[in-house]
Order: sequence, then structure tokens, then C-alpha cells
Amino acid sequence: MFRITTWGESHGPAVGAVVDGCPAGIPLSEEDIQKLLDRRKPGSSAFTTPRQEADQIEILSGVFGGMTTGTPISLLVRNTNQHSADYDKLAGKYRPGHADYTFDQKYGIRDWRGGGRSSGRETVGRVAAGAVAEKLLLAFGIEFLTYIDRIGEISVSLEHFDPEEISRNPLNMPDAKAAAAAANYLKGLMADGDSSGSEIVCRVKGLPAGLGAPVFDKLDAKLGQAIFSIGSVKGLEIGDGFRVVGMKGSENNDGFTSVDGHIGKLTNHAGGVLGGISDGDELVIRAACKPTPSIFCSQDTTDRDGNNTQIQIAGRHDPIIGPRACVVVEAMTAITIADLLLENAVCRLDSLQKIYGE
Amino acid sequence: MFRITTWGESHGPAVGAVVDGCPAGIPLSEEDIQKLLDRRKPGSSAFTTPRQEADQIEILSGVFGGMTTGTPISLLVRNTNQHSADYDKLAGKYRPGHADYTFDQKYGIRDWRGGGRSSGRETVGRVAAGAVAEKLLLAFGIEFLTYIDRIGEISVSLEHFDPEEISRNPLNMPDAKAAAAAANYLKGLMADGDSSGSEIVCRVKGLPAGLGAPVFDKLDAKLGQAIFSIGSVKGLEIGDGFRVVGMKGSENNDGFTSVDGHIGKLTNHAGGVLGGISDGDELVIRAACKPTPSIFCSQDTTDRDGNNTQIQIAGRHDPIIGPRACVVVEAMTAITIADLLLENAVCRLDSLQKIYGE
Amino acid sequence: MFRITTWGESHGPAVGAVVDGCPAGIPLSEEDIQKLLDRRKPGSSAFTTPRQEADQIEILSGVFGGMTTGTPISLLVRNTNQHSADYDKLAGKYRPGHADYTFDQKYGIRDWRGGGRSSGRETVGRVAAGAVAEKLLLAFGIEFLTYIDRIGEISVSLEHFDPEEISRNPLNMPDAKAAAAAANYLKGLMADGDSSGSEIVCRVKGLPAGLGAPVFDKLDAKLGQAIFSIGSVKGLEIGDGFRVVGMKGSENNDGFTSVDGHIGKLTNHAGGVLGGISDGDELVIRAACKPTPSIFCSQDTTDRDGNNTQIQIAGRHDPIIGPRACVVVEAMTAITIADLLLENAVCRLDSLQKIYGE
Amino acid sequence: MFRITTWGESHGPAVGAVVDGCPAGIPLSEEDIQKLLDRRKPGSSAFTTPRQEADQIEILSGVFGGMTTGTPISLLVRNTNQHSADYDKLAGKYRPGHADYTFDQKYGIRDWRGGGRSSGRETVGRVAAGAVAEKLLLAFGIEFLTYIDRIGEISVSLEHFDPEEISRNPLNMPDAKAAAAAANYLKGLMADGDSSGSEIVCRVKGLPAGLGAPVFDKLDAKLGQAIFSIGSVKGLEIGDGFRVVGMKGSENNDGFTSVDGHIGKLTNHAGGVLGGISDGDELVIRAACKPTPSIFCSQDTTDRDGNNTQIQIAGRHDPIIGPRACVVVEAMTAITIADLLLENAVCRLDSLQKIYGE
Repeated sequence: MFRITTWGESHGPAVGAVVDGCPAGIPLSEEDIQKLLDRRKPGSSAFTTPRQEADQIEILSGVFGGMTTGTPISLLVRNTNQHSADYDKLAGKYRPGHADYTFDQKYGIRDWRGGGRSSGRETVGRVAAGAVAEKLLLAFGIEFLTYIDRIGEISVSLEHFDPEEISRNPLNMPDAKAAAAAANYLKGLMADGDSSGSEIVCRVKGLPAGLGAPVFDKLDAKLGQAIFSIGSVKGLEIGDGFRVVGMKGSENNDGFTSVDGHIGKLTNHAGGVLGGISDGDELVIRAACKPTPSIFCSQDTTDRDGNNTQIQIAGRHDPIIGPRACVVVEAMTAITIADLLLENAVCRLDSLQKIYGE
Repeated sequence: MFRITTWGESHGPAVGAVVDGCPAGIPLSEEDIQKLLDRRKPGSSAFTTPRQEADQIEILSGVFGGMTTGTPISLLVRNTNQHSADYDKLAGKYRPGHADYTFDQKYGIRDWRGGGRSSGRETVGRVAAGAVAEKLLLAFGIEFLTYIDRIGEISVSLEHFDPEEISRNPLNMPDAKAAAAAANYLKGLMADGDSSGSEIVCRVKGLPAGLGAPVFDKLDAKLGQAIFSIGSVKGLEIGDGFRVVGMKGSENNDGFTSVDGHIGKLTNHAGGVLGGISDGDELVIRAACKPTPSIFCSQDTTDRDGNNTQIQIAGRHDPIIGPRACVVVEAMTAITIADLLLENAVCRLDSLQKIYGE
Repeated sequence: MFRITTWGESHGPAVGAVVDGCPAGIPLSEEDIQKLLDRRKPGSSAFTTPRQEADQIEILSGVFGGMTTGTPISLLVRNTNQHSADYDKLAGKYRPGHADYTFDQKYGIRDWRGGGRSSGRETVGRVAAGAVAEKLLLAFGIEFLTYIDRIGEISVSLEHFDPEEISRNPLNMPDAKAAAAAANYLKGLMADGDSSGSEIVCRVKGLPAGLGAPVFDKLDAKLGQAIFSIGSVKGLEIGDGFRVVGMKGSENNDGFTSVDGHIGKLTNHAGGVLGGISDGDELVIRAACKPTPSIFCSQDTTDRDGNNTQIQIAGRHDPIIGPRACVVVEAMTAITIADLLLENAVCRLDSLQKIYGE
Repeated sequence: MFRITTWGESHGPAVGAVVDGCPAGIPLSEEDIQKLLDRRKPGSSAFTTPRQEADQIEILSGVFGGMTTGTPISLLVRNTNQHSADYDKLAGKYRPGHADYTFDQKYGIRDWRGGGRSSGRETVGRVAAGAVAEKLLLAFGIEFLTYIDRIGEISVSLEHFDPEEISRNPLNMPDAKAAAAAANYLKGLMADGDSSGSEIVCRVKGLPAGLGAPVFDKLDAKLGQAIFSIGSVKGLEIGDGFRVVGMKGSENNDGFTSVDGHIGKLTNHAGGVLGGISDGDELVIRAACKPTPSIFCSQDTTDRDGNNTQIQIAGRHDPIIGPRACVVVEAMTAITIADLLLENAVCRLDSLQKIYGE
């Protein structure tokens, strides 16, 4: 119901998104969107590509007098500062860990400049659309906390956890000490032309109970599609995730309790989802992000004609994907929740009666 | 394009599914479907509920003369052997780890008998539909291997791995020794009225390269929705999954190599998916299944009116979900692949020309 | 959002539908559905096939304690009284005006018994689903008046128009005199083994303004799909329909007027839809139904192998489709409106705030 | 499967469309699209608004090296030459025949400049997307003939029918004499500040048999949605349309015949669709277009606050919608057929085997 369509290639004229089904009457400005886009912008630290892209958002439709009108919202960001020449000599070879080979197998043709449609740049449209979703959710007090929880073997410690710290360090870790250690680790990898994986956590507060659906459109199922649709994600956990394998039912079950007439849970192993439906508790999502596949050592590969060869990647690439992907995970989560918020509003006759009268 | 709709409550008259978009001309019999249904049937071992359900499939439409006709395939299984009375005294209390509370919050009404729509029995329709998908995939040499890889802390060892063993032990582990140890572990838990989590692996061989799509309909994204839509799943990994967090790009990248003109990968950290599109390698999926929430010790909870109370569950319940859920994971994977197989067939002009001529 | 899936062939074991997305809390019984099904039942007059089919509805899911639960509603009607043998000698020949040839071209296989999936019997599922939609709409005072307005050249006159008359005559005409004349006309055609076309009018009162959407999901566009999806429909008009071709803007425009603070229209040339959105006025739909293609004279055709031949149809067939199709048009209209009623409820922030609070 | 999303308001910065699911490998240039856009461009005759809009198409994604790549194709046309001031004094009043009132009822807010989203300008995106569809269809020899068949009471005569004439006169009538008479008729109406309705015919040659589906996705049903989604359409006929009401089965049935092993029909009352599936014959669609609601005489209306008043429209408006809407009907038909062409390619196992092998 809250639908997004994205489009655009890395080195084409622009990238963008169309948001369809956004309710009318939400205050929305280009600044609202720019704020989220700036969180994924390259060129802002030693750990992101030095490409300087303005990533200036343009709202082309669906907003009038500073408010959404209910009609499709078209969002556009022009591409600038592309170095397509960097890719000229890679055009005929398959980069390991990238989608070059699979795009060729699927379509028989691909825009090989900068990864084309499979570039991380494609996420600009999602983040822009996610900013619209966040504005809607904000009207209902739904808020996000997204950060890097682990880089290599360096984890955020609960002891030093400080949400304020997230935006203070370039790695978006809520723990200054862990961030410093991770920065050192990354510098070592960069010296070797190598890269690192990372783990993203997204926590959502303020969700009403009832979002999701019993079977295919479960909240966690929709999140499964949303988060795995982000290029580098290889794993996803809701709540205790893989830790449930080693748990007993008596450890994993969250008892219910009522305080002042409000029913809640005693623990939150479930991560805020029971039977595919939000339970009113904090939603806890954890995503594993693979290391940047663009590394600078020589790698075995083939060319399009099936000849074995070596590939040596040059150019400007982040040594880690997670910190810039945090806002993408958040955007996709926001879009998913916005969609289910609309669905849930009409799943009961008494809800409809509040709108239409009896 | 290969769409399924399921319906039915645990203690209602029947459960079922409608498969829409299944190509015409596939041989399909009730036996084909029964075979998969029997893999999820209760009552077959010490580790499944002693409920005896025939789970007899009936094909009501879409098949003529033993072949699919291209029209919707309606599949029905009558419910039998329900003990609704077991649930009478639970009706007003929220079972921890179950969807009772969230259903009430969402719909204001629910069929509380046996969990109603949120019962694992709902998966009968999925397995039946998955059997149809598997018949389609079989025509293209696509085959599945699904098993339990871990129960509690007991893992299958690569050393003793034997696919033949999967159907020989009631826990569906491809390692007789691990299966025996896990059986002991479960017996101990059952004595305490407790339950265990488990880990399911599903591997798919024979996938053509090219299935999936660049952005929202990535193969892994569609699997994300499909697998997380299964009631008890709390985690999902594709290929190396969460292990990528600790890896370097130089470890995680799979080099390409060409052998006899056929391009393949030197390793398969990616688990058969690059950029959301199958790469022709084995697809490797790993799902974490939570412990059965129906345990027999006393638990804290509330009733519908918000009074704190205790709940004591009785009745017939599996001490572990994974072994019976294996076939559900496989069915959902098959349905997902069938859908993308159709999509991929029409994503190139030259494919269309093979069908319509030029 | 209010989605239906139908399935079933004319001479298969059963036909049915699954209704997904129906809000929880609507009183629904098998009697509610049976009432609509009885309006399309054969065997009830000289002008319908003498086949006696019980068409007994069975609700298999989604209803508990007489109320919808928000989960999928599975509806089933067993087929009985089929004379498949009537079709044996037609199996290899293409019946003119039927879908035999096109099904073979599309699928390469078809259940030829009684027309299979292309039989009018397929509409049983739609009518059952439409009955659910009507129950929802009734809660908001939305009501239907559906009838035959013309058979051959015999039209209902405004002068004799009496809605009570619709259910009194077997042709569902709201004009006893026209009904009698049409009955005579049909008897003449039946004597020749021939059949007649007819025109169905469906009028809907009580629609709130605001249903529909600006572009592809216009109320009239969704009705366009819904009504043309009924087998025999060859034309559709909203409001003045084709009469607008000969009209001037000054004749066709409906002026607005305000009475007691309520804005309405001075005329209703638009038929209740402006810019694809309901305007609060009566919705007026007119559909052209072709003559029954199963006629009893000899007709030119070919067999499956492309040999020219003659076909002579026997068996039991209605001489006119419209009277039994009235309830199908009504059902499809109800389903369409139900869907848009849900969509419209969530297209404004202030509507959502009524449900979730601020 | 061939999906389009359009966006944009009349007086916003731009209008556009995203085409998703277009197969890779189709030659596509901005000229291909411009050609169709020029057919709907204003300012080209006495019978269109004198607004001069360049309507210059920009392809922003999905095309590389002159070929579609299978990824979303983003199409954009900047708005220019808007006279928003013309609308200032209309902002608070409801224009009869327009969507002002219904938009306000639905969304509570609307971009009132130039009709905003409900302006005919919205169709720019559809025509651009339709041009992409036509390029796909052209690869299979599918071709369109679209024209005005009637204006007021002036009809094209079969006797003078000349397809070459369509592009020679500004009214797109395939009959020079009728076009001249209609021009006179329109000049008279324009002198009175009035407008006329018209009838559009769209004929499609070269369709393979098999497009469409048995029930809800019938070819005619999808056309029903597509054509009624065009703002001014109030009626639609397939083949004989409303004439079937007065026909007998023996007149309406099209016999089959085989010539040189190729099965065809003796007549085409059906208009190329049997049972919702294309039969290989010419597809014949007829749409009724209402008179332009923007007329220059004084009309009864109300303001937003419900006060009765008069409205006097000024500005630049076409006296007839049909001639510029012809290409919109054609575009929507092309999009519909493209979608069903893809669907039909994968509805049989043997089609899939042509692509994937056995």
C-alpha cells in the first residue's frame, strides 16, 4: 500500500524513486529527505570513497504547499562526479563478489559503468523514499536507532553503549572505544587494499501492536524481503536470531505482564514480533553486511568469453559497507512499517467505522 | 507469477491452498503432493505430537487427465482428530511465545482453538503448494536437500555427513551420530516439559544462473520473505551468513574460473547468489527455528482483561519444530524459485523470440 | 486489499473462492452467501437450463462464532448433476463463440467437459465472494439495485419502472410489461434453438465520495476490469456512456449545488464518478451481455486438427445470459467497491490518526 | 509484468513514468518516444489548446548503448509554459465535470493549478511508457491503427475510409469528408464556448492467439481497466459491443474455418477476444470520450465552503478531447498487450523448455 519504485544506474544521468500510496497531509520538504541522504553520502570520512557527490534531492511531484497530496511523489537525484573511465578496462571481466556475471547471464547486456544498476548508488532512491516513510511514522511516535554493532571481531560493548556516539564517529558505532579500535583495524586492511564485513542493528521504538499479518505478509517476512534486498546483506536476525537454536523454550518464551492495565512482555527475546505481528515491544533487527567486494589485490576471474584471467580493481571504494548502509537498512525498515501501518488500519470493521461512521 | 494463497485454521473444517500461475502441461497427481505432506505429518516419532492426522490431499481443480491445465489448482486437506477441548481453558489467557496476544490486538477476535490461523497446521497448504512447485522445478533438474544441521549445541559434522541418513532418523539429521545425541538431548528436555531450538539447512542444486532481480525482487530478498513467513523462524543466512562480519573481502570474494568453456566459481561463500541473482552455483540457505513455545511448565502471563496470572499448557505438542519444518522451508524455497524461474524466462527479447518467433 | 481468488472447473469436483483482506468483525453466515448464490442458480425458470444444482455453500475458514476473523475466507461449492457425456462428441471441435479454441492456443490442454474453467459456472466463486463484500458494504449503508434493462429490442420503460418487480419475473426486469414481451420474444428464439443478448444495469446507492484513485485505480477503471472479466460482457458504460459522444460539454457537465451544507450535483450524467473518484451520487453501470453462444442449429467450425466441419450442440443451455449474470455484475461491483473502500480509508493522515491516535 | 508507474502534476516541475519489467535487448531511443508524444502535443491545430509545450522526453535510466537493459526505464518530461495564474480565481470553486470536488473529498488537499494530478497532462507519462511497449510489440509484428470514428453525430463512413487520412487532418479521422464536417461542427461549438464528445477506435493487427487469461486477467478485462483509466472515457466496447444486446446467437457467433491449415474465424463480431483470450483476429476497441468539461459559459457550482455560486472558466482548453486522446488509448492498449504477451510466454511447460532446455 505504501509502494516504492526505484530506478537508475550508477553512471547514468540520475537515480530516483517514486513513492505511491503515501497518505495526504504529511508535511514534507526537500530538507526532510536531504537529512537522510546526507547520512549515506560518500566523501565524508577516511572510511568512505573520496568521491564527492552532492546528492541533491529534487521533489518533482506529490507535494503542494509543503504537504503531501496523496498522489505519487517523484524523487530525483542527479549523478555527478562519475569516473566512468575507471571501469573501461573492467568492462569485459567479471569482478568477484559483484553482480557482473549474473547480470550478463540474466539480461545479456548491462551498463558496466560503476556497476550500473547493481551499484550501491541504487540505494539513493530507497533512502529518499525511506525519508518519506519516516515522516509518516514520526506522526505516530515511531522512532529509529540504527548503528554498527560489530566490525571484524570488534563489537560494541553494552557497558559503553551511548546512542549519542553514533553520529560522532565515522563508523556509526554507539561506543567510542569500539569505534576507535575498529578504525585501527580498517586502516590496517586499507593498507593491504582489503575490506571488512560488519553487523548493523536497527531498533524501532513506538510501534503499535498489530502490524503485520498471519502468514506471508508477516512483519518479519516483509522485513526479510526488505533487508535482504540490500545488496551486501547475507544474514538477518529478528530478536534473538540464531541464538534460539541453542535455547530452550523456557528460556526463549517471553512471559506477559500487565502494569497499570497495559499488557507488555517481561523480556524481549522475540524482538518485538509474535506470530508475524508486532507486539508493541521494541523491534530488533540485526543484519550481516559482507566486506566490500571491490578490493585492490589481484583476483582470479574470467572474461565474458570464458577465458581465465586476473583482475586488478582500481578506483575509489569504501573499505567497509556497513556504516553507509545503516541508513539504507533504516529506510527499508521504515518503508516496510509504513506499508503495514496502512494495512493494519483497515483490518477491522470497527476501525473502518471510525473513519466512515456507522 | 507463481502465486499461492493459503487458508484455514487449525481446528476449522479444513486447510488448503490455491496455486495460481502454474504452467500447463506438468504431470501432477495427488500422490506427488501426498509425498511431501507425509514429511510434515505428525504422529510419526517420539519427537512429534502423537496427534494422528491423515492429512489426505484432495486436488479440486486445475488438473485434467493427470496434467496441470494452467488454471488455478485448488488443494484441500480436511482437519481431523482435533481436541478443541484442550484449548477451552486457555481461551482467555495469552500463551507466551504464541500469537494469541498479537492476533487479539490486530483483529479484536480470533479462533483460539489450536492456535487457529497461527497454528503450524497452516503450513499444510504451503507444503501442498510447494509440491506443485517442486514438480515444475524437477522438469528443469532443480533438486533440494533439506535437513537439520543443529539442535541445541549438537551439530552435524562434515565428517559424518550422509544425505541418505536424513530420512532414516526422526530428526532429519544427515549424521546418525549427531541424530542419536540430539535424540538424547530432546528426551531430557521432554522429561522437563521443555523444548529446543534447531537450525535448518536447505540446499538447491541445478539452478540456472539468472534467477532473481536487481533490487526488491532479489532471489535472496524473495527467500527472505518466504522463509521468515514460516512461524518459528528467527534468523536466516544465505551462504556464509553472519560469518561475513568477521571476514575480509579477500576471504569472502569467490573468484571465477572457466572449465571447458563453462564459467563457475572457485568457492561458494556467496551461497549461489550474486547481486540478488542466482549464479549457477548451489543455493545455500540456513534458518534458525525457535524452540516450541508450547511448554508444560507454569509461565507468567495475563488474561484478555489484563489481569496477571499463570498459564499451564497441556495437550499434545512437538518438543522441537525444526524436523517437521524442514519440508516447509523446502516448499517455500521451491515456490520462490518457481516464481523467479517464470520471471526470468521473459526478461530478454531473445527469450521471447524463442517462443513467439521473430 | 479486498482480494479474491477463484478456482474450479464446470465438471470438476467443486468450484470456490478465497477472500483475502476482509476486515475482522463482520457478521457472516452461510445463509448470507446462499441468498446471493440462489439468484444465479439454474433450473428456476423456463429461461434457464433445467440442470438442477444445489449450489450449497460451505465456509471452510475465516469465520469464528459467526464473525469474520480477518483471515482468509475459503468458500466451496461442490459440483453435482454434471452430464459430462453431453460433451464427449464436442471435445475435438471448437464451439463458435466459446473459448475452446483460445484455451487450446494458450495452454495446449483444456478440460473440455462443460467448458471447464471458461464455463459460466466459474462465477459461483465470484458470487460467493461478492456476498462477503456486500455484507461489508451493508455496514456502511451501501446498497445495490441490479436488473435487466433490455432484451433484444425490448426495453424497460421509465414509466413502468418498479424495483419490486425485478425478483417477481424470471428475467429480472423492473417492468412487468417489458418482462412479458421479452418472455415471448425468448420463447420464439428458443423454438428456433437460438438465443438473445441483453443489457444489465447495476446502480449503487450510499457510496461515500472519495472512492477510487486519480490514475490507474480509478473507480471506473477497476469496474472496467471487474465487469469485463465476466465472460459474456462486450460493452460497459458509466453514467451516460456512449451518449456522451453526441453531447456538448454544456449538456454533459453536472453542476454542483449545496443544500443544507451538503454539496451534491444537479444532474448525474457522470454516473457517480468524477476523475475516477466517487462523487457521492448514485453509481450507474450498464453492461452489454452477448447472446448465449450455445445454440442448437448447425454451425461452421473446425476440429483441433484444422479440418473444416460442422458442429451441432445439444444439452441444456440458457437462451439468455443476462438474467443469471445480474448477480455476477453486482458481485463484481461489490468486490470492487469493497477494495476501494479500504484503500480510501488510509489515504489521509487524519484518517490514520482517527485509528492510531496522534 | 510489464508495469508502469506514472507521476506528476500539470503545473509541477515535471511529469513522467517508470517502466518496470521491460525485457532487455529492445532498441530504444528518445526519438522513438518523442514520436508518440508529438501525437498528443497541444498547440498543433485550431482544435487544440494554443499552449506551446515542447514535451521533450528524457530517458534517465534502463537504456545503455541504445538498448533496453531489463532494469527500470525512467522517463521524464519537464513542464513549461504553465499559466498557473489562470487558475488562481478557480482555486476555491468546484469546476463541473472535473475532479476538483472528488479530490478534495478524498485527500482534503489538492494541487488546484491546472487540475494538478487529474489534468490530461498526466497522460504524458502513459504515452511515453506506451511508446516503449509499442517498440516491444513491433518486434512481434503487432501494429496499431487508432482514429476518431465519430464527433457529435458525424461518423466516419466505411465507404470513404482511408487510414492514410488519419494523420492528415487535425481530428484524426480516416475520412476527409467527415473530418471537414466535424471541423465545421466544432467551430460552431467553439464560437459558443462549448465542446463536443467523440468516439475513438483502436484496432490491433498481428496479435498472437493466446493473450489474456480465463478469469480476472482476461484481455478485455485488462483493457477495461486500461481504457477506463483515461480521464474522459465513459464507455467501452470490444467487437460488436452494445450491438450484441439486439443480436441473436446465430448472428453473433463467429464460425471457425481452416484455410491452408491455419484456423481463423469467418467473421469478427467478437473483436478478437474469446473467453478473455486473444483469438488471433484483429482486436477492435471502441471508447466514448466525453466533451471537454472546461467550457466558457457560466455554470452552477459551489465553493469549498459549500456556498452556491457561479463559475466562469477562462484560459486555454481544447474543444474536444478525442483527437489528442487517440494516442493515449493506443498507449494504454499497447501497455496492456505487452503485459499479457509476457504472461502468455510462460503459461506452458513447453514454452519454458524452449528457453531453459529440458
